[in-house]
Amino acid sequence: MSLLIVGSVALDEVETPFGKTGRILGGAGTYISLAARHLVKEIHLISVVGGDFPQKYLDYFRHRQIDLTGLKIEEDEKTFFWAGRYHDDMNTRDTLVTELNVLAGFNPVVPPNALHADFLMLGNLTPAIQKGVIQQMKTRPKLIAMDTMNFWMHTAWDDLLEVISMIDVLTINDEEARMLSGEYFIKKAAQKILAMGPKYLIVKKGEHGALLFDKDNAFYAPAMLLDQVVDPTGAGDTFAGGLMGYLASQGEVSFHHIKNAMVYGSVLASFTVEGFGTDNLLKITQKDIQKRLDEFVAVASFRL
Amino acid sequence: MSLLIVGSVALDEVETPFGKTGRILGGAGTYISLAARHLVKEIHLISVVGGDFPQKYLDYFRHRQIDLTGLKIEEDEKTFFWAGRYHDDMNTRDTLVTELNVLAGFNPVVPPNALHADFLMLGNLTPAIQKGVIQQMKTRPKLIAMDTMNFWMHTAWDDLLEVISMIDVLTINDEEARMLSGEYFIKKAAQKILAMGPKYLIVKKGEHGALLFDKDNAFYAPAMLLDQVVDPTGAGDTFAGGLMGYLASQGEVSFHHIKNAMVYGSVLASFTVEGFGTDNLLKITQKDIQKRLDEFVAVASFRL
Repeated sequence: MSLLIVGSVALDEVETPFGKTGRILGGAGTYISLAARHLVKEIHLISVVGGDFPQKYLDYFRHRQIDLTGLKIEEDEKTFFWAGRYHDDMNTRDTLVTELNVLAGFNPVVPPNALHADFLMLGNLTPAIQKGVIQQMKTRPKLIAMDTMNFWMHTAWDDLLEVISMIDVLTINDEEARMLSGEYFIKKAAQKILAMGPKYLIVKKGEHGALLFDKDNAFYAPAMLLDQVVDPTGAGDTFAGGLMGYLASQGEVSFHHIKNAMVYGSVLASFTVEGFGTDNLLKITQKDIQKRLDEFVAVASFRL
Repeated sequence: MSLLIVGSVALDEVETPFGKTGRILGGAGTYISLAARHLVKEIHLISVVGGDFPQKYLDYFRHRQIDLTGLKIEEDEKTFFWAGRYHDDMNTRDTLVTELNVLAGFNPVVPPNALHADFLMLGNLTPAIQKGVIQQMKTRPKLIAMDTMNFWMHTAWDDLLEVISMIDVLTINDEEARMLSGEYFIKKAAQKILAMGPKYLIVKKGEHGALLFDKDNAFYAPAMLLDQVVDPTGAGDTFAGGLMGYLASQGEVSFHHIKNAMVYGSVLASFTVEGFGTDNLLKITQKDIQKRLDEFVAVASFRL
């Protein structure tokens, strides 16, 4: 089935205890689509870049048959740029530079070949833009998932609640779940958030895994145990890409399917954080993924 | 099989966002033995209390057939007393009072009826005392587990390393694993710690679950999802009690058995934190435990 992805395509500059990159490929839409591409064939990416966006990065997508009909290139503008520095614990970071550039005027238009996409993933963006994309769809996708962040809870509360009421899966981190619900304990927070509209809530806890909730069930997916984390940038978006790529490849949606999709998401995210930027997402093979899935099953399974 | 437990029996005073207790029953030895007692019959507890220790608390143990031959009552002294206040997040606390009292001169003597105990659990104590208990055993237990804390890494490093080299299972939290190994990433930390002697390492991560390592394998046990946490005191010791109670009830030790033991430990700990002190450990039934085990399996299981 087809997967439509809306999200930023950016240039990033990242510093971690393991090193510092120059300007490299980044952005939510980038990580989501490169991750999903390992699991599903038909992917449409909607985003915008400036005239400074390197041709070789465009080729990364094109060589992977990710459809860029919906990627606008504003030749006279500059690509969204983000620079950040991670602390030694890799769990906290300082944003050094955020230049919205071309993203400031981003007004996504769903191209004709994606108006009936089966699955829709809305990367973290202004809620009003996320809503606009949903409204453009000619048929309601089988599943709409969205990511968001605390920033929109402070600046666009009403819009955020409206788009949350229109979707099926919300992915946020634990702090954001607390902020959105006003509840400290995640189990209670989840029920409040589900009452806002989504059928499923995924709470991302970074190195501590991720939780899935619907009204009646919960699932705790541990994170992969890694020798080291080199650069956490893109982990959440890679997770979302793996999640939606798996679901689109299966074509079915249920609590069971989403559980498995989270395992794929965790496995793909584990590759991302072991290298800088998209290095590993661009490099890994089906065999690498299968090997790590086996490891995941071994680490997370028990039989009483 | 029989389980010998060495650990503090204390009076605690706890304040959390949910309320404040008076002086209540506490201590590592208390939580470990009350938890283990739900899973195994023959338990010997070695500890020491003062003349102020309430008879009704002694009865809690006696009514549960926990053997107190090794519990010394120093009539002229006072029981170990600890008071603490938890912050709103329940993950951090301030220690308000620590009065070692009778615990300062604690010199555990293994009573004759426990010299051949099959399983030995050493609660957090001075490493030299833990070592002394191991040396008193007439036959080497099938499994020796010990808990410790960062304090001994600062004050009794050599003794700590010596006792760690004598045991089979070490249980510590993630920060302590980092401190003990000098490694930030837990997977690497685990291999360094296993090289110090223990066959198994359990890293406790509180609300994020617990990890088990041996040289070749890893297992990630999630924590139960709870509506709320009322008082985290004793969670780690309850976990250890469930762990060792289960293993003693099975009589066998393997990676597989320890995985399952961790599930029992997590389930019992979940009851402890839902109430103040030992309230819930004293109250729960086999049916309660089984129900929560079923919930745990539902939340932690998947089938790719």
